[in-house]
Amino acid sequence: MFTTTVSPRFYETDAFGHVNNTVVAGWFETAREPIFRIFSPDMDIRQMSLILARIEVDFVAQIYYGKDVLLKTWIGKLGNSSFVVAHEAWQNDVCVARGQAVQVAFDFATQKSQPIPDGIRAELEKYLVP
Amino acid sequence: MFTTTVSPRFYETDAFGHVNNTVVAGWFETAREPIFRIFSPDMDIRQMSLILARIEVDFVAQIYYGKDVLLKTWIGKLGNSSFVVAHEAWQNDVCVARGQAVQVAFDFATQKSQPIPDGIRAELEKYLVP
Amino acid sequence: MFTTTVSPRFYETDAFGHVNNTVVAGWFETAREPIFRIFSPDMDIRQMSLILARIEVDFVAQIYYGKDVLLKTWIGKLGNSSFVVAHEAWQNDVCVARGQAVQVAFDFATQKSQPIPDGIRAELEKYLVP
Amino acid sequence: MFTTTVSPRFYETDAFGHVNNTVVAGWFETAREPIFRIFSPDMDIRQMSLILARIEVDFVAQIYYGKDVLLKTWIGKLGNSSFVVAHEAWQNDVCVARGQAVQVAFDFATQKSQPIPDGIRAELEKYLVP
Repeated sequence: MFTTTVSPRFYETDAFGHVNNTVVAGWFETAREPIFRIFSPDMDIRQMSLILARIEVDFVAQIYYGKDVLLKTWIGKLGNSSFVVAHEAWQNDVCVARGQAVQVAFDFATQKSQPIPDGIRAELEKYLVP
Repeated sequence: MFTTTVSPRFYETDAFGHVNNTVVAGWFETAREPIFRIFSPDMDIRQMSLILARIEVDFVAQIYYGKDVLLKTWIGKLGNSSFVVAHEAWQNDVCVARGQAVQVAFDFATQKSQPIPDGIRAELEKYLVP
Repeated sequence: MFTTTVSPRFYETDAFGHVNNTVVAGWFETAREPIFRIFSPDMDIRQMSLILARIEVDFVAQIYYGKDVLLKTWIGKLGNSSFVVAHEAWQNDVCVARGQAVQVAFDFATQKSQPIPDGIRAELEKYLVP
Repeated sequence: MFTTTVSPRFYETDAFGHVNNTVVAGWFETAREPIFRIFSPDMDIRQMSLILARIEVDFVAQIYYGKDVLLKTWIGKLGNSSFVVAHEAWQNDVCVARGQAVQVAFDFATQKSQPIPDGIRAELEKYLVP
């Protein structure tokens, strides 16, 4: 499992006084950075053959400014050309949000999905928690 | 149906050269503003008895900087205390993203969901497209 | 003078209940879009020979959610290779923020500033209000 | 001096392939969090008697995705009711941005600036580097 810690930023709060919901989609993208590194070890993002097809986020509890948030990330499902990344956000030992992202290995030249390369698949499998 | 137009902002693009996926979650929140106004006509947000329980976004096509995006929004489902808001984003006459948001009428005093008030329900029904 | 209207987005508010200050830097970038179009008429941003050297923002009054904001933009100073873009944000007929941006014509190949091309200079001069 | 480390987030990049300039204004706000804590130790932000009057950012070098950025923050000037916070952002041992923020002690009840309370002033002085 990958873990990342984010400190809520003041501009991420909203008029309700808590972290805005849309921010969590950005945090979960941030939590996928280790997966981007698997696809593109030198982080040459423009060469990264990966697209995002779908995201889901469940907002479980309010997220407060002033306390760190732990993001837990793993591979929930590993298909031929696509895979599901699962996320949880925890603050004060409470799960405050859950989510998932469907990522697809993609060939930008042909504009089509492509099988996940074997080396990358082997790496992703290490984080597979079905 | 509600419609809102957004002009992609330069800082909303990412290193792939298109609008970043997480931005769409923010646009769809923006597209729900007319619904926030139904719950709180004077836009006193801190008094608004409404929480967001869940979002989903499907990324259908790349979204480009330099062209407006039309957001179409309607009520997809209307329950007792919760309702589903459906969204589509269109650019250059192409549907580039779809999504939905589950909103819940909420009593902050008791920290519990509550039935959608009748007056608000009648207003939401006008935008119901099952 | 260029004018752009932005509707404050809910996620742009912060826990103080108003639009967050850092958001204004993004709005002013958005207000420079017509200037980006002068440098790159087809909005091929990656080919745009322009960098941002400096920004300043003065926060004059609180900016509220629920009311449009008018952004006024003009060229305040036009040098050989650099120019100053001046901005004002108005809400409810009150100037709520002022700012400026120093932009520099830049040759990415040599990584050096370069004179503003004549055709572009002529266009920028139309918006010069010293 | 206060130091904070931020990892550039993918959505913070823009179509130029680097971190967007407007993001730095948000990072510098984040770097002022220890100062917010001096004004409001329990981080009850809505009770914090502090407003932001002005920001300046100089963009010195491109900021890349994939490498941490160190934010150095100190008090540059300490007046009666206002003070200047100075910031630098460093990546790969290069100063990539400099900035400052003018903050003002503010009484929201009277909507006027007020002298910085003695206890807070003593704390801020520890970080004063004229």
